[in-house]
Amino acid sequence: MTSKEKIGLFTGTFDPLTNGHLDIIERASKLFDILYVGIFKNDSKNPLFTTDERKAMISKEVASFKNVKVIVHEKDLTVNIAKKLGVTSLVRSVRNAQDLAYESEMVFFNRQMTGVETIILVAKPELEYINSTRVKEIFKLGGDVSPYLPAEILREMEKISD
Amino acid sequence: MTSKEKIGLFTGTFDPLTNGHLDIIERASKLFDILYVGIFKNDSKNPLFTTDERKAMISKEVASFKNVKVIVHEKDLTVNIAKKLGVTSLVRSVRNAQDLAYESEMVFFNRQMTGVETIILVAKPELEYINSTRVKEIFKLGGDVSPYLPAEILREMEKISD
Amino acid sequence: MTSKEKIGLFTGTFDPLTNGHLDIIERASKLFDILYVGIFKNDSKNPLFTTDERKAMISKEVASFKNVKVIVHEKDLTVNIAKKLGVTSLVRSVRNAQDLAYESEMVFFNRQMTGVETIILVAKPELEYINSTRVKEIFKLGGDVSPYLPAEILREMEKISD
Amino acid sequence: MTSKEKIGLFTGTFDPLTNGHLDIIERASKLFDILYVGIFKNDSKNPLFTTDERKAMISKEVASFKNVKVIVHEKDLTVNIAKKLGVTSLVRSVRNAQDLAYESEMVFFNRQMTGVETIILVAKPELEYINSTRVKEIFKLGGDVSPYLPAEILREMEKISD
Amino acid sequence: MTSKEKIGLFTGTFDPLTNGHLDIIERASKLFDILYVGIFKNDSKNPLFTTDERKAMISKEVASFKNVKVIVHEKDLTVNIAKKLGVTSLVRSVRNAQDLAYESEMVFFNRQMTGVETIILVAKPELEYINSTRVKEIFKLGGDVSPYLPAEILREMEKISD
Amino acid sequence: MTSKEKIGLFTGTFDPLTNGHLDIIERASKLFDILYVGIFKNDSKNPLFTTDERKAMISKEVASFKNVKVIVHEKDLTVNIAKKLGVTSLVRSVRNAQDLAYESEMVFFNRQMTGVETIILVAKPELEYINSTRVKEIFKLGGDVSPYLPAEILREMEKISD
Repeated sequence: MTSKEKIGLFTGTFDPLTNGHLDIIERASKLFDILYVGIFKNDSKNPLFTTDERKAMISKEVASFKNVKVIVHEKDLTVNIAKKLGVTSLVRSVRNAQDLAYESEMVFFNRQMTGVETIILVAKPELEYINSTRVKEIFKLGGDVSPYLPAEILREMEKISD
Repeated sequence: MTSKEKIGLFTGTFDPLTNGHLDIIERASKLFDILYVGIFKNDSKNPLFTTDERKAMISKEVASFKNVKVIVHEKDLTVNIAKKLGVTSLVRSVRNAQDLAYESEMVFFNRQMTGVETIILVAKPELEYINSTRVKEIFKLGGDVSPYLPAEILREMEKISD
Repeated sequence: MTSKEKIGLFTGTFDPLTNGHLDIIERASKLFDILYVGIFKNDSKNPLFTTDERKAMISKEVASFKNVKVIVHEKDLTVNIAKKLGVTSLVRSVRNAQDLAYESEMVFFNRQMTGVETIILVAKPELEYINSTRVKEIFKLGGDVSPYLPAEILREMEKISD
Repeated sequence: MTSKEKIGLFTGTFDPLTNGHLDIIERASKLFDILYVGIFKNDSKNPLFTTDERKAMISKEVASFKNVKVIVHEKDLTVNIAKKLGVTSLVRSVRNAQDLAYESEMVFFNRQMTGVETIILVAKPELEYINSTRVKEIFKLGGDVSPYLPAEILREMEKISD
Repeated sequence: MTSKEKIGLFTGTFDPLTNGHLDIIERASKLFDILYVGIFKNDSKNPLFTTDERKAMISKEVASFKNVKVIVHEKDLTVNIAKKLGVTSLVRSVRNAQDLAYESEMVFFNRQMTGVETIILVAKPELEYINSTRVKEIFKLGGDVSPYLPAEILREMEKISD
Repeated sequence: MTSKEKIGLFTGTFDPLTNGHLDIIERASKLFDILYVGIFKNDSKNPLFTTDERKAMISKEVASFKNVKVIVHEKDLTVNIAKKLGVTSLVRSVRNAQDLAYESEMVFFNRQMTGVETIILVAKPELEYINSTRVKEIFKLGGDVSPYLPAEILREMEKISD
């Protein structure tokens, strides 16, 4: 059976990439022939890491998933980026009802505008509370964030905060 | 890039198949090389249509989706069926927070037992309230259910109720 | 300005009528020229009170709301009853997200079938947990249910349980 | 039967009025003898359209609903405005559990302060994701927002963005 | 400071006790001077284990928590049992919004009837999907339930199913 | 039976303390040998009352609960404060699903970082909508907030607004 290549796109700010993100990337990589990880360029918003730093760090973390490609994109509608890349489906992760309400709205507008599909992966329970914002807040107040981040990324955070 | 064939499985009772089911099947068929539609055998539970009737009706409805295969399976854990078929991912549809809570539990146990992945598609708003149980109830009380069902399936329901 | 008479319909089993129901009836009575309170006939289901008993009890409780009419109807689609009565809008009460999910489905089907509108009143916080099923259960186990029921209806329950 | 005139009030920023708003106005107009559409004055907040522009645009859109009156009000408690207008009930629209949680809080405070009632209409599924904020965001990024807005209002948006 | 002894009560059917229950018992045992684990007698409902069997099994599992006492009680309002035991607070566990809605109703009625307090513990993420009903269902279909149950209790289940 | 002293900690901004807060403090005071009420120092954020004023006002309100101690703490992780105080359990209040989602995240991180437990009390229905932010907003617009605040605290608010 011949069939069209399946291409996924998982976008985010990833400032920083957490173990939660990494798990979604690993799981999504098995569902597509190619999975793009798209980093939103937000250098004007005073991020913890520059877009280039994040691209380098994420590329290292996903190196073992052979069909994952890390890209950076300017502020634009995700669906426009998806179109240019020939994406079959966006990939989103939800943790609870609030997430679902937000994602459902995005799914609706993205499909209406370009017909692109969205698949949702449910976060693993042990990762469901991890998010970049909370991790940065805990880190700033001196809390231990090592259970939530890849070791290399934690090291980069510690360098910055010195 | 060579990569493993992507195989999906969407299970249900489909008694009867609604326009909501049909939309999920169409959308999911684009995400996989093969999509199995698995009908649970429940003839002892006094269904509206026998499993064989449902298999015939669904097969007709999905005939234009070339990579969709309709199968029947005995009462068993969905994950066991998925394993035998070499499934990459189960396919589920959610409409609201209640659905998500239920599906999240299933996602957890299915992954724990066999490592199988589950993707969730958000029901289209205009189809989100449609479900077989309510459609049968409305039909029984004489209400018009034509907006919710494929024309052919409605005809079969009308034949039965004569 | 001349305008069409506004007619509401609030249906339920009311077995028994609680203070929660009574509050919704009082509030809804101010929104319509006529408010029908429709009791579902369910005598075959072994109710606590027969439909006739309920009609008599509810009629007494709502006697002071001059534009409220208590009616009984056979098992039928609510929208069919609404049509016969020339109803402007159904009246429903919600207490939480679960209620809303259920009522939203009903709103959808009722509008699709007959175009009838539904207004939703949010239950008052102090009444939000009161429902006939729980009240009967507590009463059966000897708990005090006097805060949840009109005095007269409590007396009727006590007579029955003697 | 003589009875008091039923007066509704539906307030919002309406910057801009969407098809979602318009549907609620049409549905609510049938429930009351008079329905006020109240625009919050927020010219200091750098709106897309000035309050006067919005009043003119909305008035045109609702011209065919004979009992609808468009008004502008200064920043004030909605209940104070409702009191001055002799309003029977506020009108609110909900789309999901999050909306309900917010509206329930408002219903509570509005009733406590002045006794005013609030009716809730459930947004139609096909309109449930439409809101002014998202529409403006998509428009700004060059997306097609024509399915979400009255044609005239879209034209006004296009004029501004030239 | 002298103060009244703090006594907790955690009730359930525990058919069978899961790792989720055991975690709540361990956590709750630290909050009280005495924690009662109350097993509802339901031998007429064809449980997997008789009440006596469950009492023996649970007693073994909680033996290391020195202030935990396992008791059996007849079908009665939980609050009546709490009263007889001089309980300071009931203990409940929630996993999601649905659980909270149910427990909030119970909290309300239990306080209204006897003034007894209820504390809620949030289930640990990795245990949040585990419940006796699902575990029994998976076990019956031949799935591996060893991650969800104390080893001893799993052995008892395997004996029964032989 | 000798057992470790049970110590609770209920933190907040309390700007101002509402009847909702006061109810949680009263209920929580019965569950612990000592209950700390911890006020977050936020004087740089232009609060309605300074931290010192709040400490004085709250101390007066809780004077009759003999085991309650009001403390002020600098911006820090709550769990660090809990550790220094030898706290057995944090105390949180939830009103609905949104609250639970937020609190569950906090419970997770607080336990992971220091092992501290968190108990959740469900807000009483009649107090569930009361929160400092809304009360200040209503007060500013001239609404009556006397049902939501201790009399003394309302007087202090009125002094300020003169």
